[in-house]
Amino acid sequence: MRFRLRPTETAFYGFFSQAADNLVKGADILGELSLSDPDFQSISDRLQDIEHANDDVTHALLRKLNSTFVTPFDREDIYRLGSLLDDVMDHMEGAGNLLYLYGLSQLPALPREMHELISTLGRAAALTAAAMPRLQALQDLEAYWIEANEIENEGDHAYRMLLVRLFSGEYDTLTVMKLKEVADELEAAADAFEHVANTVETIAVKES
Amino acid sequence: MRFRLRPTETAFYGFFSQAADNLVKGADILGELSLSDPDFQSISDRLQDIEHANDDVTHALLRKLNSTFVTPFDREDIYRLGSLLDDVMDHMEGAGNLLYLYGLSQLPALPREMHELISTLGRAAALTAAAMPRLQALQDLEAYWIEANEIENEGDHAYRMLLVRLFSGEYDTLTVMKLKEVADELEAAADAFEHVANTVETIAVKES
Amino acid sequence: MRFRLRPTETAFYGFFSQAADNLVKGADILGELSLSDPDFQSISDRLQDIEHANDDVTHALLRKLNSTFVTPFDREDIYRLGSLLDDVMDHMEGAGNLLYLYGLSQLPALPREMHELISTLGRAAALTAAAMPRLQALQDLEAYWIEANEIENEGDHAYRMLLVRLFSGEYDTLTVMKLKEVADELEAAADAFEHVANTVETIAVKES
Repeated sequence: MRFRLRPTETAFYGFFSQAADNLVKGADILGELSLSDPDFQSISDRLQDIEHANDDVTHALLRKLNSTFVTPFDREDIYRLGSLLDDVMDHMEGAGNLLYLYGLSQLPALPREMHELISTLGRAAALTAAAMPRLQALQDLEAYWIEANEIENEGDHAYRMLLVRLFSGEYDTLTVMKLKEVADELEAAADAFEHVANTVETIAVKES
Repeated sequence: MRFRLRPTETAFYGFFSQAADNLVKGADILGELSLSDPDFQSISDRLQDIEHANDDVTHALLRKLNSTFVTPFDREDIYRLGSLLDDVMDHMEGAGNLLYLYGLSQLPALPREMHELISTLGRAAALTAAAMPRLQALQDLEAYWIEANEIENEGDHAYRMLLVRLFSGEYDTLTVMKLKEVADELEAAADAFEHVANTVETIAVKES
Repeated sequence: MRFRLRPTETAFYGFFSQAADNLVKGADILGELSLSDPDFQSISDRLQDIEHANDDVTHALLRKLNSTFVTPFDREDIYRLGSLLDDVMDHMEGAGNLLYLYGLSQLPALPREMHELISTLGRAAALTAAAMPRLQALQDLEAYWIEANEIENEGDHAYRMLLVRLFSGEYDTLTVMKLKEVADELEAAADAFEHVANTVETIAVKES
């Protein structure tokens, strides 16, 4: 059992968990894209709703940070972790919104590699949501960031293979450009998940 | 009235204000693109001049930072704020230079959504320049970062609508690619403005 | 001679030097692309080998950081410097891997401007490797970050000219897109080199 030198405000952990739970919901909605005949508008709308809900979580976190004298770990790291969880949500919402805005529902199917990239986001979200409750005790976090790194590597691979597919000549130019923008949002979400894990690692290193 | 525990070197505030004033000038020059028959070469040249002038401000700030023992707030935050203001300028200059280098003056007109994105940069620049003088007293800054966030959301929206327009089939492929690069520079400038606001928020959180 | 107040663990400097030496090797391998009839698969494979070797260096650095009580400078900066050196390697490997994956060896030649961009990476790598051993004494580092900045400016210029070339109409659309992705990885490597220099500057500012 770790002995903490400072009495801490534990509300922050609740905000991080709520944000990570929102990411699980977001990844689930993106996962619907692999079902037959997905409803692109509904997917975009529901992602926007969750993104707005998550903005409220982030703002409540920042207000709490402003009014708390002794924080459980460095203020900047709390700020950074909240911002990064928010970034993941923004990029997930961006991917769903662009798919709808660009009219990509007209395609017979999205490339298989895009579903694989989305699937790594689902795993990263579940992993992050499972790790957040362990942040308070700073226990068993090494397994989290090692696995987060592995998932990021798989996501990178899926992204590269997706680009190879997009540039194969199978799609017309404008469709390639549109799918590329969606792919970039998904990849940015995957990157932001890795930055979340890196920030948790930084916190653990400082507090250890 | 806020009581400061440490005597501070106030020169830093002057550098931040100078840099923000340069961003107002830069946004004004980019705004000329919405006039009839804009001079792309002159716009690019004048943006480069301001960017060079701003590099001098940034370097003077860093030299001051190196020679100052007690800083008004954390050294890293002064460094970061200076770097981010410089980033905005770099991306503004980049947008203007690419428009010229790619020969986009040949187009009958730039897309309306690009002017809208540039217009959000103008508002973000004015807002930032008005906030910098309030940094010393750390007063009335919350309104600044809330509005900066709103402008960033409008900029994001304008950027997305610009891409929808570019991918609509109205332009030939190479023109789409060129305009997309310019759009990305403008969007990066908008992002950097938001990061400036976030850094000011971080400073205020730390010092509060 | 600089007097250090704290006894320090000097192993970190060795890790930074090893990582920078790997970047020199990586830039040399990318430099083979300017030879006649380069072997794209071998270049990609060897870059992956070095990237894996460099991952081991980065992980050893982080383990050392976890087990060291008194660090020569701020933990976060050690973490950040290690991460950034790793980023450069990742982007170099990415460029080599994409060239191979996209089948770009089929082109009669890569654009001259791409070789110029790669050449700036070679100079940045050599400069960084020469600076790392001076980190311990924190001496003669100003010349390093000034030159790093100049090289970054040349890299930016080479990148812009490369895009002008790619968008000139000389290549078919899919080839433009593929070369653009490679160019972006090279540019990201150049940016990461600049961030390495900025981090060294931050460390020097803090410790001075």
